[in-house]
Amino acid sequence: MEIVEVGPRDGLQNEKRVLPTSVKVGYVSRAIAAGLRRIEVAAFARPDRVPQMADAEEVLRSVPRRPGVRYVALVLNGRGLDRALALEAARPDEINYVVVASDEFSRRNQGMSTASSLGAFRAVAERARDAGLFVTLTVAAAFGCPFTGSVPVSRVRDIVADAGPLDEICLADTIGAGVPGQVTELAAAMRTVAPVAPLRAHFHNTRNTGYANAIAAVTSGFVALDASLGGIGGCPFAPAATGNIATEDLAYLLNRSALKTGVDVTAAAAAGTWIGSELGLAPVPAQLGRAGDFPLAS
Amino acid sequence: MEIVEVGPRDGLQNEKRVLPTSVKVGYVSRAIAAGLRRIEVAAFARPDRVPQMADAEEVLRSVPRRPGVRYVALVLNGRGLDRALALEAARPDEINYVVVASDEFSRRNQGMSTASSLGAFRAVAERARDAGLFVTLTVAAAFGCPFTGSVPVSRVRDIVADAGPLDEICLADTIGAGVPGQVTELAAAMRTVAPVAPLRAHFHNTRNTGYANAIAAVTSGFVALDASLGGIGGCPFAPAATGNIATEDLAYLLNRSALKTGVDVTAAAAAGTWIGSELGLAPVPAQLGRAGDFPLAS
Repeated sequence: MEIVEVGPRDGLQNEKRVLPTSVKVGYVSRAIAAGLRRIEVAAFARPDRVPQMADAEEVLRSVPRRPGVRYVALVLNGRGLDRALALEAARPDEINYVVVASDEFSRRNQGMSTASSLGAFRAVAERARDAGLFVTLTVAAAFGCPFTGSVPVSRVRDIVADAGPLDEICLADTIGAGVPGQVTELAAAMRTVAPVAPLRAHFHNTRNTGYANAIAAVTSGFVALDASLGGIGGCPFAPAATGNIATEDLAYLLNRSALKTGVDVTAAAAAGTWIGSELGLAPVPAQLGRAGDFPLAS
Repeated sequence: MEIVEVGPRDGLQNEKRVLPTSVKVGYVSRAIAAGLRRIEVAAFARPDRVPQMADAEEVLRSVPRRPGVRYVALVLNGRGLDRALALEAARPDEINYVVVASDEFSRRNQGMSTASSLGAFRAVAERARDAGLFVTLTVAAAFGCPFTGSVPVSRVRDIVADAGPLDEICLADTIGAGVPGQVTELAAAMRTVAPVAPLRAHFHNTRNTGYANAIAAVTSGFVALDASLGGIGGCPFAPAATGNIATEDLAYLLNRSALKTGVDVTAAAAAGTWIGSELGLAPVPAQLGRAGDFPLAS
């Protein structure tokens, strides 16, 4: 089971304290040292709307490039892709493009309807794939919208059906409202429109359902899970959203469930505690840093 | 799915601030108003070891007696049962007797080996059943011991096999180390030695696995789950143990999973926030009080 480390992007972008690039690079380096190999490090968003991501280019130029480590950048439109491609040798390996499942949330987040955002995605995806980038489509608010409530499974299915070619589908519970039964239903619906694309899930622990959803994802065919070291984060445009599920806690859950993640729980917990101190958070939402691994090393 | 409210006992007993009886009764009354019908309200423990439970008799005399509401008291030995029976009309409806699965933890917690504690249980259980009380055996540290590490499933099975007649088996992850695979394995093992006794589980969320374990319990045959309003609590004798899974968050998870709990999530969340303020905890571990129910009431 692959854990995608999204702390440097989704984790940080909702935090008030804007960190210097060097601290972000330190976070990424600690993630690599803990065994993470796929890391979302930046968003090409408007700096006035997401100040924490204003140094996206500098982060991508500064993170260590190592064999086997892939960097992901969030892209919201063609301008974002332009910025990614302009980095040339410092390009991300992948782009993650977000389409919001409900029109109301899509308009507030991206200034356009879901259909318009999806149309823009198809054009961006084609250019990105031509440039050799791996393309993920994330459907945000796939488990519920903070403004309009329930989101039908058919709505998420239709978005993916209309998305055109993509390398991966990520379903995001942006506001942390989902429950395991939704995970299973959405997985089945994906298979009717995208039989082979790898499935990735993105959970927030806003209502303490995130880890139960992660287990449901494992058993219903998802092969990758987003998480943030420390469990930091949220969404600046989703009311009352809280952090991603925590990498260290997820790794504990999966490692002890006989699913290999490659993540060293103790190193991950130390990284989570460290980023918490850099952000002035004490304690972080992750629990492993306080509780420790189990069974204790002898 | 039945939720057993254990906040007034397990939730409170690890809290430093000792509450007056009237506040405990207020907590119980709020639990009833939120729809809970089976509530662990007291422990007959030594007041010098568990000061929060020193008013056990007064609590049992003061809580409202209503049709359909059952009160549980924790009992650790014959003296505890004597105290329960001496209450006469104010007796609890049930006793919950704890045997600790590992000898080391049992000695530290109860001053005797697991076998001695189990022998004492058989005598207490017989007297309690003769007096008309419902008897639950809780096997504590069934998912791991903070001192000696892993606890074999066979150890838990053998304890239950030797317990004699009982009305219910409760398996407790006292230190919040368990994962869903253990829940499933333990459920299967119980069925080899106790084919018909109802199974109840008790999870702490110390490593963020508690709610995933709860879902595993639902699907593997458990019919009752312990939780505390606010997610308060812990164990004074287990290092780094944190709160029970929260009643409001568990009810959200189960209600939205089409399992009827009878619990009003909004009333439960308000009760959790209230007990947190009485304890000087802000915020409580439960998330629903901050995030709110979903979908929002229209």
